[in-house]
Amino acid sequence: MRETIFISVDTLRGNIEEIFCKAGLSPAQARAITRVIVAAERDACKSHGIHRINGALRTIEAGKVVLDARPQLKVDDASTVIKVDAKGGFANLAFELGLPRLVAQARSTGIAALVINNAVHFSALWVEVEALAEEGLASLAMCPSYATVAPTGGNKPLLGTNPLAFGWPREHQPPYVFDFATSVAARGEIELHSHAGMRLPEGWAIDLDGQPTTEPAAALAGAMLPFGGHKGSAIATMIELLAGAMIDDVTSAEALGLLGTTTLYPKHGELIIAFSPTAFSSGRCGSPFARAEALFEAIVDQGARLPSQRRFLARAKSETEGIRLAQQEFYQLNQLLTKGLC
Amino acid sequence: MRETIFISVDTLRGNIEEIFCKAGLSPAQARAITRVIVAAERDACKSHGIHRINGALRTIEAGKVVLDARPQLKVDDASTVIKVDAKGGFANLAFELGLPRLVAQARSTGIAALVINNAVHFSALWVEVEALAEEGLASLAMCPSYATVAPTGGNKPLLGTNPLAFGWPREHQPPYVFDFATSVAARGEIELHSHAGMRLPEGWAIDLDGQPTTEPAAALAGAMLPFGGHKGSAIATMIELLAGAMIDDVTSAEALGLLGTTTLYPKHGELIIAFSPTAFSSGRCGSPFARAEALFEAIVDQGARLPSQRRFLARAKSETEGIRLAQQEFYQLNQLLTKGLC
Repeated sequence: MRETIFISVDTLRGNIEEIFCKAGLSPAQARAITRVIVAAERDACKSHGIHRINGALRTIEAGKVVLDARPQLKVDDASTVIKVDAKGGFANLAFELGLPRLVAQARSTGIAALVINNAVHFSALWVEVEALAEEGLASLAMCPSYATVAPTGGNKPLLGTNPLAFGWPREHQPPYVFDFATSVAARGEIELHSHAGMRLPEGWAIDLDGQPTTEPAAALAGAMLPFGGHKGSAIATMIELLAGAMIDDVTSAEALGLLGTTTLYPKHGELIIAFSPTAFSSGRCGSPFARAEALFEAIVDQGARLPSQRRFLARAKSETEGIRLAQQEFYQLNQLLTKGLC
Repeated sequence: MRETIFISVDTLRGNIEEIFCKAGLSPAQARAITRVIVAAERDACKSHGIHRINGALRTIEAGKVVLDARPQLKVDDASTVIKVDAKGGFANLAFELGLPRLVAQARSTGIAALVINNAVHFSALWVEVEALAEEGLASLAMCPSYATVAPTGGNKPLLGTNPLAFGWPREHQPPYVFDFATSVAARGEIELHSHAGMRLPEGWAIDLDGQPTTEPAAALAGAMLPFGGHKGSAIATMIELLAGAMIDDVTSAEALGLLGTTTLYPKHGELIIAFSPTAFSSGRCGSPFARAEALFEAIVDQGARLPSQRRFLARAKSETEGIRLAQQEFYQLNQLLTKGLC
C-alpha cells in the first residue's frame, strides 16, 4: 500500500492559496479557486483536486487569466436574472459574488437565475449546487466547455463535455446532488487509458473518420460521444444554448477556437437556476421536503444508491481524520510551494 | 401499401372534439385535449395521436377526470411562479390558462415558471415548449408519470418514464425542440414487442428479480430502465423532485398508488420553466439567436440531425395535403363518433 499523509483542511488551504498567490493571482481570486480544490480533496473527488493545480498554473502562465480580476455584479431591479461579469478571472470568485443575490432573489420570487460571463472555468458544479442547498434551495447548474464531443450522428468535435449538476436540500444530512459530464466519459479517463496502454470500452469515442474506436489515440484525435445516445446529445446541445448562446457567451466550439488548445482551462459562461421549494409549494398543504425524503428512502430501500454518497462518506472521514494525500501528492504540493510557478 | 385517407386539420379537430363532448367533457376541456391530439396526428407523432383517444375515454369512463373542471389561476404578484390548479381536469386546459401569464412574466423578469397541479396528464410536452418558442422564449418542461422504471442499481418500479422537453425559438423556421422519456424505451414499445412476439433489445428492462431481461412479458412484470445508466436515472429522479415534490404534488410512485393501474392516465403535476434569451443577453453585444443558428448549422453540416425534424417535415406535408390517416384509423374514428363512449 502506498504511504499516505494526513493534512488538515486549513493547512491544505493555506498551502494552495500560497501557490496561487505566488503565481500572481490576487488574494481574492486565489482564495476562491482554492476553496474548490480543497473541497474536492476533502471529498476524495480527485478530478477537481490538487492534481488540477498544474493546469490552472499553466493557464495563468499562458496569460489566459486576468490575475486580479474583480467580478462585477450587474444590477437590474426589474429582472430576476442576476448577472456577474467575471472580467476574465476564474469563475469561482464570480459565483461567490453572485450567490447571496441569487439566494435572496429565489427566496423572494420562487425562481431566479445567476449568469456568469467571461469566466475561466475551474470549478466543480457540485460545489455550487451544494452552496444553494445549504440555503434551502434546489438548483440546476450547467456550462459548456470546449469542443471535444461529436453530436450523435455526427463525426466531429462540436459540443463540450458540458456538465450538468443538480442539488436538493435535505435536513440534517448532505443534500441530494448529482454532477456529471454529458459525454460518456471524461477526457481525462481516455488519457488514463492511453497512459496505461488499455483499450477503451465501446461507445466512448469515434476516430477522425467518425467510426467507433476503442483506441485511445484515435479517440483523442477524433471525438468523444455523448452519454445516452441522441438523448444525451440533445441535453448537451441544450447546455450550449442555455449556458452559451442565451447568455451571449461562447459555445464550446467558440471557446476552443479562442483558446486553441485543450491543455488549458477555457473561458466561457455559466448558468445556475435556483428554486425555492417553499415558494413553489406555498398554498398547498403538504411538505416538498417530506415528499422528497419518501422518494430517497424508496430508492435506498431497493438497494440503489443516491449520487454523491461516496463523496459525502469521504468528507465525513476527512473532517475527523484530516485529508488523506498520497506521499507523492504531498511531495508535489511542496515542490509547487517552494518553486512558485510550475 | 395500406390505403390512406386525407383529412383536413379542421375536420379532424371537429370530429375529435365531438367524441370528447359526447363522452361528457366540457367544451373547453374537449377543445384543449383535442388540440394536442390533432397536432400530434398532423406531425405524424402517432404516440400522442388518435390512438390515444381510447385511453382518454377509458380514463373518463373510470371517473378519473373532472369533466367540467375549470382550472384556476393562483395569482401572487410577488412571485414569478405562475400556478394553475387544474382541478382534476386534463392538463391541457390548465396549460392554456397559464401560458399568457408565463410568457408575460418571463419577458418581464427574464425567467419564470408555470406550475400545474392536480391535472390528468394527457399531453405531449413538445406542444407546450413549441407554444413558448412561438413567443420567442426558450423553455424546459417536465413531469412525473407513474412508477414503471427502476432507478439504476435498484430492482423495482419507482420512477416514471418522466418526459423532459426543451424548446428554443428560431426565426422563419420551426424551433429547436426535443421531448423524450427518461426511460430507455416507452412502455408502449415494450407492448409492441410483446404483441409481435419479439424479444427486446438488451438494456431496456429488468424482470421481477431485478435481473436483465429481453422477454417483454418479464419486462412488463418487472421494470423498465432509465436511459443512459446512472445519469439518466439521476435526471428522472430530478424530475420527481422538481415536478413532483417541489410543487407539492405526487411523485410517480404516489400517482400509481392513487390510480392503481397503468391502463388509465395518471393525475399529477407539471413544471415548465421559461427563459427570455433577450433578457438573459441584455447588456451584451451579440445575439443569442445568431449564436444558436451557428451551432445548429455546425450540427447539420457534419451530417447529424436536429431533433424533431421528422415531425416538422410531416407537419409541412399535412399542411398542404391534409392529415394522412390509415383507412383503419379513419374507420375507428368514425366508430367512436357514432358510438360516443368506446
